[in-house]
Amino acid sequence: MSERILLAHGSGGKLSHELVEKTMLRAFFNPYLSKLDDSAILDLSGRLAFTTDSYVVDPIFFPGGDIGKLAVCGTVNDLAMVGAIPLYLSLSLIIEEGFSQDDLRRILDSVRRAAEEAGVEIVTGDTKVVHRGKADGIFINTAGLGVVPEGIEISGSNARPGDKVILSGPIGDHGIAVLSRREGLSFSTELESDVAPLNKLVAQMLEACPRIRCLRDPTRGGLATTLNELAKQSRVSIQLEEEKIPVREEVRAACEMLGLDPLYVANEGKLVAIVPDSDAATVLHVMHQNPYAREAAVIGEVRQGRPGRVTLRTRFGTSRIVDMLTGDPLPRIC
Amino acid sequence: MSERILLAHGSGGKLSHELVEKTMLRAFFNPYLSKLDDSAILDLSGRLAFTTDSYVVDPIFFPGGDIGKLAVCGTVNDLAMVGAIPLYLSLSLIIEEGFSQDDLRRILDSVRRAAEEAGVEIVTGDTKVVHRGKADGIFINTAGLGVVPEGIEISGSNARPGDKVILSGPIGDHGIAVLSRREGLSFSTELESDVAPLNKLVAQMLEACPRIRCLRDPTRGGLATTLNELAKQSRVSIQLEEEKIPVREEVRAACEMLGLDPLYVANEGKLVAIVPDSDAATVLHVMHQNPYAREAAVIGEVRQGRPGRVTLRTRFGTSRIVDMLTGDPLPRIC
Repeated sequence: MSERILLAHGSGGKLSHELVEKTMLRAFFNPYLSKLDDSAILDLSGRLAFTTDSYVVDPIFFPGGDIGKLAVCGTVNDLAMVGAIPLYLSLSLIIEEGFSQDDLRRILDSVRRAAEEAGVEIVTGDTKVVHRGKADGIFINTAGLGVVPEGIEISGSNARPGDKVILSGPIGDHGIAVLSRREGLSFSTELESDVAPLNKLVAQMLEACPRIRCLRDPTRGGLATTLNELAKQSRVSIQLEEEKIPVREEVRAACEMLGLDPLYVANEGKLVAIVPDSDAATVLHVMHQNPYAREAAVIGEVRQGRPGRVTLRTRFGTSRIVDMLTGDPLPRIC
Repeated sequence: MSERILLAHGSGGKLSHELVEKTMLRAFFNPYLSKLDDSAILDLSGRLAFTTDSYVVDPIFFPGGDIGKLAVCGTVNDLAMVGAIPLYLSLSLIIEEGFSQDDLRRILDSVRRAAEEAGVEIVTGDTKVVHRGKADGIFINTAGLGVVPEGIEISGSNARPGDKVILSGPIGDHGIAVLSRREGLSFSTELESDVAPLNKLVAQMLEACPRIRCLRDPTRGGLATTLNELAKQSRVSIQLEEEKIPVREEVRAACEMLGLDPLYVANEGKLVAIVPDSDAATVLHVMHQNPYAREAAVIGEVRQGRPGRVTLRTRFGTSRIVDMLTGDPLPRIC
């Protein structure tokens, strides 16, 4: 096999088959994929969760992860955020002619490891190749399928006045890690992306408290945008306490230098949970046992009135409205 | 809304939400999508078919279709080719900054119409925007979900010696239509892509003959590559009769001019069926009633021995081996 991806790797012909057999099947061997039919056949029943995301992150490799790990975790997390147990992923690649085969193998290896950690299988896929200059290295799409257990009803529209807002850990790590690699910034410590599969954390939380109302991962648009979405969908307002929101010192410093607000910076391994007040302590306790949520904290609460409004009580005791992200200070962050 | 797609339309923030609410929800309104949670929740059970494809066709608009119609039909057809009833699609867009919003709406309208014809719903989606020059207009990924009815067992590995090979109509229309638009070639008549959803045709065929062994749509790599795949998966050989394979005069002429072999040119609205000899007449009869298979014909048969080999008996009575596509004479055809 040559060292670079050629147009013919996307032709559907011999080189495509070689790529599938030597690279894909080797990375993701399972009985669904290896049948090589036009669709995978899966035995499933009940309430299924179905989601998709395309990943265009620049750079492809960044501190703490790469586009492959991101493409698995992002989709696994979207399934987990409706309470589903993620089971199967599709994997579709759009590759620029001339892309390094070594980099491709490294990315697929990363996909494999993330899928193993999350307990999901890659059961169907596709590869397209476009001419040099018509894409940027590699873009990845994953779609995901999962099963929502009986009795679980999670939706962005379920928040109720009095509920507590829990955040699983410090915000902004992913966005700042990607940006710093892209722009060649360096910090005293190497900040890493938080990209991680959160499905096991969610399963533990739901086992302890099946009444969790809302779950969402604050990716593009950051925590501020996610909370605006939840407040709008549930027709409630949300009040945040600035001093309760964890932000790493490196992220805070980078944001100050770059004129960014950590509330709007993307995360890829964090979640927001809205839970009944009476369950907040139990959920927090469970979260603190999981390595991806050691710093989980109650950061605010749901209030009646002013549907869709998110406010922040600052360290100085003043209050300000936190709107959805406008513009795009950090393009291609995921 | 501005007339061009901006980076901020992919930010996850306000413009992203505006795009989803004003454009996506308007085009594809349904109760799954309109919940706006991280995954759609679907009630489904049994043997599910799951598939994905990314579409990078150049040009985006071509005679007989566009990338939107292609993205629906291609994935619907991949579900139909395992005997599934297609039900739900995801839709994920990677858009180049500066892309025309009018063109986007035209493409989404085309997605909507193709989905309506196929009887599938767009239940989840994603939009990413990359900088100018980092993609080529728009790339679309769809993943699809369907249900395989009881008793249907279709796979590329099921062909048996004695079976008949049926082709649903003339080959090469899609590839030549796209290529002629891209290269500015003109023919005496305007040749159109055959892009079409074949799920209803397949349902009619399966109703008449549930014992159909293999179905496959000869897309990238053309009829020759598809038959090579089937012969290899089923460990049989296939003998074709050249004079039985329908090719339109315009396609034949264009192929001669361009040095292409129609056997390797992509189709997007054709299928190959391998059926028991005793069922061939029944299946053909049913196919001839469907507008997408009026010219269906038996083009060859499955033989024992030489597993994976496809041979063609020419008009002159000689025989030649038909190999899988090598190289890529027609990149970005789908």
